[in-house]
Formats: sequence, structure tokens, C-alpha cells
Amino acid sequence: MTQQCDWLITNLRLATLLPDGEPYGTITAGAMALAGDRILYAGTEADLPDLAPRHHLDGRGRWATPGLVDCHTHLVFGGSRAAEFEQRLLGASYEDIARAGGGILSTVHATREASEADLLASARTRLARLVEEGVTTIEIKSGYGLTLADELKMLRVARKLGETMPVSVRTTFLGAHALAPEFSERGADTYIDTLCSEWLPEVARQGLADAVDVFCEGVGFTPQQCERVFQRAVELDLPIKAHVEQLSDLKGARLAARYGALSVDHLEYLAPEDVPALAESGTVAVILPGAFYFLREQQLPPFAALREAGIPMAVATDLNPGTSPMASLLGAMNQACVLFRLSPEEALQGATVHAARALGLSDRGQLLAGQRADILLWDIDTPAALSYAVNYHRPEERFVAGTYHGTGDTRP
Amino acid sequence: MTQQCDWLITNLRLATLLPDGEPYGTITAGAMALAGDRILYAGTEADLPDLAPRHHLDGRGRWATPGLVDCHTHLVFGGSRAAEFEQRLLGASYEDIARAGGGILSTVHATREASEADLLASARTRLARLVEEGVTTIEIKSGYGLTLADELKMLRVARKLGETMPVSVRTTFLGAHALAPEFSERGADTYIDTLCSEWLPEVARQGLADAVDVFCEGVGFTPQQCERVFQRAVELDLPIKAHVEQLSDLKGARLAARYGALSVDHLEYLAPEDVPALAESGTVAVILPGAFYFLREQQLPPFAALREAGIPMAVATDLNPGTSPMASLLGAMNQACVLFRLSPEEALQGATVHAARALGLSDRGQLLAGQRADILLWDIDTPAALSYAVNYHRPEERFVAGTYHGTGDTRP
Ligand SMILES: [Zn+2]
Ligand SMILES: [Zn+2]
Repeated sequence: MTQQCDWLITNLRLATLLPDGEPYGTITAGAMALAGDRILYAGTEADLPDLAPRHHLDGRGRWATPGLVDCHTHLVFGGSRAAEFEQRLLGASYEDIARAGGGILSTVHATREASEADLLASARTRLARLVEEGVTTIEIKSGYGLTLADELKMLRVARKLGETMPVSVRTTFLGAHALAPEFSERGADTYIDTLCSEWLPEVARQGLADAVDVFCEGVGFTPQQCERVFQRAVELDLPIKAHVEQLSDLKGARLAARYGALSVDHLEYLAPEDVPALAESGTVAVILPGAFYFLREQQLPPFAALREAGIPMAVATDLNPGTSPMASLLGAMNQACVLFRLSPEEALQGATVHAARALGLSDRGQLLAGQRADILLWDIDTPAALSYAVNYHRPEERFVAGTYHGTGDTRP
Repeated sequence: MTQQCDWLITNLRLATLLPDGEPYGTITAGAMALAGDRILYAGTEADLPDLAPRHHLDGRGRWATPGLVDCHTHLVFGGSRAAEFEQRLLGASYEDIARAGGGILSTVHATREASEADLLASARTRLARLVEEGVTTIEIKSGYGLTLADELKMLRVARKLGETMPVSVRTTFLGAHALAPEFSERGADTYIDTLCSEWLPEVARQGLADAVDVFCEGVGFTPQQCERVFQRAVELDLPIKAHVEQLSDLKGARLAARYGALSVDHLEYLAPEDVPALAESGTVAVILPGAFYFLREQQLPPFAALREAGIPMAVATDLNPGTSPMASLLGAMNQACVLFRLSPEEALQGATVHAARALGLSDRGQLLAGQRADILLWDIDTPAALSYAVNYHRPEERFVAGTYHGTGDTRP
């Protein structure tokens, strides 16, 4: 029986990223069929079912991969921290910079000052860079507003980016990013009180957040404060994520795992003995080499323990104006290989299937029937090329939720 | 008296990069006038002479910088080394990789196999990335042919890139990059004999090289062999450059300085006491953080001594398939700041005026009357932004040798 479909793509090499024993889940002499926003078939040309495609695309032997997923970004923010970057290189201390109004609070100030349109315009430019490289799903956190109104503003901007660009956006409420200056006298516990009792319920009510995140660190919030955020998020049926063990070991990962976190992120100071807790909770370890690079850190995440426990590792940009001003997921994959010695296959899994899981999304990240048809076609000799080269490669053509973007010959 | 000119650009902030005491040689409330391929005026709006411009462009308060100059690349090559990058991360040793046909000789093999059209196509893709970022002048080395015919082929491809893209190309003959496999029995001295007596004169006769370079290193050529290349280059009236002190201190910089080298490049192992020799010969120190990053080196060039002696420092990509597969000069500037602690001003000087001097070009690299009109307009808050952010910024409009590239409103 002949089956209708929208697209048939032949003459492909598929990096399916299925754990089938082949590196990258490779299928040579592959083909794909798409129906609506879904993959109908991904496999060998030889096994293609009988199809009546509306359009036919010649893959010309190129590699197909799933769309890239950047699962940890602070993409929406006001202002720039370029002057602070310069001051630090000219010898200013952190205190000098704080006295001059720099640091994260300068971004909070600029984000509050910015209109929704301003934030949208600056974020759009950065997002365009990521999209050019093949990002089809991105997570965007709030956390530079630190008032309810400004946090909601950031989340609305994030949602609007997804509505106006060919990319799927997942939003995360990160009110517990830094202490709002209005609470500097009353203290962090009072801030967390307000956040839990007033802000989180309103964010949930408006449906503006797909997850809730915290910054568990000496310069952020204590594990006790983070736990209160987790409790409230669970009550509101919102999944949680956490910035943990970036600069010190506060046992934040273990805590987040107890609350069934989707992901724990950074992890440079994670103790190997805390890794099994992540396996039990099915939590993804998100690796952020950009911040490691910019901060010139030396301490590496416990990769041996993570691999041994079979923890899925995602790789993301951590795009933010302070510690990772970098709009390149391929660049983060390269840093993961060069600085963290991940293999190119781990890096690509980390920016596709594992990144999707870090967002609680099981419908994308692999080339498999039933998955969302987010597909990139690359003129490369091996999928390792994506991690190997900095600023060489762009997908030549792509599908986003089944919609074709490109200039190929697409006669039926 | 009213002067004719082709372009008047007003409402600019100029980063002239003149050493006038202002950071970046800044002129706020600036304007520029262009006539033909030259800058006619660069200064304050207030001091503008009486002009009759054919076109008028509103700078809208943006920053203008000179076009970027990438003064050290191996942009033209065949094949890819992505698989080798992966093998190494999967644990293969250098010997394993050499046995499997990897390393530089795999690039030599692929470059010899490639047609001129193939080489042009692959180099064009990489060059397009650099041009997008604002590169208006690029140096391209030979050195993967290692036969006279293949070296000439590489140099012709480099020249052709400059004829077909909006970028000025300077070519460098780097026959002394690695020992050609045909000479493995006869040895490096015989190879250098042939290179000096047969190849260099022919390259010079065909006018295909603007300079001559050597790889002075334990894994390259000895100082004695390099000196013979320098002597022959001087006889043929070709300026010299040299890869020196990247992995060890062979006193290559001192030797190159004796021959009046335009530049010495890499310099991680340069001894501080050898720095004054560079001052005497007016040699530029070319810093290549990409290779440092990819090779995970620890040893930094002697920046204190270089600064003290007032040696101009250039920053380049070293774009090559083995040790710096990176098509981003802004990325190299960022690495120079993050990994080498250069200031953003040093990085921008290094990718403009000092890079031009490393190529023997005094006609570009600053916004100054009489210089080539290679000008970039950026939507940034400070020139430091160019070194601060990875893959954010692109020039919005540009002039290359006075020709406008962009979509601005250019009514007269
Ligand atoms: Zn973060
Ligand atoms: Zn080089």
C-alpha cells in the first residue's frame, strides 16, 4: 500500500544518534521520509516503504543529523559586559568592578531598563547566530529581572522568540539567580520567601515557565534556600534544574536529584561519590565548557564517574553576558572536546539527544520515526567534523518541525 | 574650496587605532570621507572640510574600525583532519595516527590530489566565514604541496581567492613546512637544496609569493636549513617570515631578525633576552592563540618582555587543518584576551595595524587619510566588544578598497 508523505530525502548518510552500536548510530545509504511535523521513516534506502511524496530532495551523499539543542542559555538580557571584560584585563579587581556598578547587577539594571522590544531585538541577533549553526531548540532562562514584573518580561520575550523564529523555545524561571538589590537589607531568606509565595505561583499561572532553576553556590543561594524553591516548584508541577558545583561542592547535585531534577548543570566540583544519585533520578549532567574557558577554571567535572554510571551528558553554550558571552553551540562542542576531552560523538549526543532529555523532551534529538522532523543536512566527511572545526560548518539545508528551509532543488 | 569625494560618512565613533593617547585612538562625533579606494578624511565632524560627496551614509552612532587583517593562515588545503581529531580523543597515539596515514602528510596527500577548482571551493567556504566577520586582508601560505607544481597550485588558488572575493590576499611560500615524502631517503638538506635552487626562483619568477616562510622546529627544519632559505629569499628580494619557538627554543626568532623578518610567529618558547633583537629589526611578533588552545599548551609567549621592548604584536587565526581548524579572527582575538591576557585594545591592534605591518603593508590598518578605505561599521557599545564576545558580532556595513558593501540608505 502506498503511503502519502510530505518529503522524501534520499542519498543521505544518517547520524541517527540511536545507541545501536554504530558510532553516531550511522546508517550509510540512508533515506528519510517526513509527514507533517514528524519523521515517518529514517533508515536505509533499501528498506524504504512504498511512498507517494509531495516533494523529493536529493541528499547528495551529505550527512543528516538531528537539529541541535542548546539546553542551557541566558540568551535574553540587556546591556553588555564588554567594558567590564576590558577592565578586568587591565587589572581591575572584582571589587573595583562591583564598586563601578559592574558584575551581574549591571546586567540586572540594564535588563530592567530595557523595553520588551529592546530585549527582543538584542536577543534575536544572538539567537540568529545559534540558528545559523543549526540550533532548532533552545532553552532560555530568566534571572536578570529579579522583580516579578521583570522576570515575567524576560520570559515573555523568550516565548516570543520562539513564535517569530524557526526554533523551538523552552523557558526556565531562574528568579533564584542572584539576590535582588531590593532585598539586600532583608536578606536572601526573605527573597526566597517572596519568590516562592508570590512569584513562582504567578509564573506558573501564566504558563510562562517550562521549568524552574536555581543557582546553588556560595555567591548564589544555599542548598536550604534552593530546596525551598524545589519544594514549591514540585507543588506547582514544574520540573526543576539546578546550577550546582561550579565553583565549590555544596552537594547541590545530590539535593536536586532528590527532587527528580531534569538536569544538574556545570558540575566541575561534583564529587564522584555523588554521581550514582543522578543515575537513580534519571538526571542529565549538563556540561558548560564556555564558562570554564572564560573563567580559566582548572577543575574538571568527574567524567570517569559520570561515564561509569552511564549518566547522559549534555553540552550547552551557557550563553550569558558575564561568564560565557558565546553564541556558538558548535563552539561549545569543540571546547568540550578540546578542554574536557569528550569524544566528538559524546559532544554531538550532548548537543542533540541528551540536551533534549535535559529539557524533558523525548520527542526530538534522534533520527527516528515518530520524532519531530528537526533535521540538518551538512556537507562534511564525518559527524566528528562538527566538533573539530570552529566556525567552518553550517547546515546547508534544514527542516524545522517538518518545514523545509533551504535552497535545494525540491521538485516532486 | 569644495572637494569632490565618493563617500561621506557622518555620525560615527572612530576607532582609528592611531597611537594618540586615546584608547583605540578614539574620535567621538567622527566622520569619514572616501575618494576612490582611499580615505580622504577621518576625524571629527566639526573639522570636516568642505566636501561634495557622491554618496552620504548615516553612521547612526556606530563604531567604525579598520578592516580586519588575518596575517597568518594556511587557508588553502585539501581534505579534513576531523577523523584524526576524533581518533586522538579516542586514545590513539601520534604514532598510531602516523601509521594510519594521518598527520600533516595526510593533508599533503589530499592537497596534491585536489584539483585547483576543488581547493578553491573548499577554501572559499572557510574564507567566507572570515569575511563575514570583517576580514578585508588575509595572508595565505602554501606548504601542503611540497612539490614545485603543487606549491604553485596552492599559491595560484590563494591569488584567485583575492580576485574573486572582497578581500585582499597576500601569499607566502612555505615550502619549508615539512619534509616532502619524496625526500625522506635523501634527507632535509637535499630538500632545502632543491627548494632554494629550483623552487624559490620559479615561485619568484611567476610572482606568486609576497613573502617566504619557514617552520623552524624540531619537527620542522633546523635553524641552519632555515637560514639557507632566508639567504635565497633575500637574494630574490622576497621578504621573510618564520614559524619559531612554538614548541621549543631553537633561537629561530633571533636568526629571522638577522635577516630582517617581517614577522616571527608563535613565540611560546621565545626567551626574553632574544626580544631586543626583534626591536632592532622592526619585526612584528605574531601571536597565535588558536594553536595554543587546540594543542592545550601551557607555555605563554614572553609578553612582559615584548611589551617592554615595544614590539608590535599581531594576532592571527593560524587557520590550518591540524593545529588550528578555526575560521574566526574575532575568536582568535577573544582567545588572545582570555588565554594570553592581552587587552582588547592590544587584540584589535593585533588584528588591524600590527597585522598589516606583519605583512609589510603600511597602507592599511588605521583610519587615517591616505590609507586604503577598508572600513567596518559595527553596532557595538565599545571596541572591546569585538574581543569580548564569541560569534555575536558582524560588521553591519563595510567598505573594501572604497567599495560599499551593505544595505544602508546611501542617498547622496
Ligand atoms: Zn547558567
Ligand atoms: Zn602556521
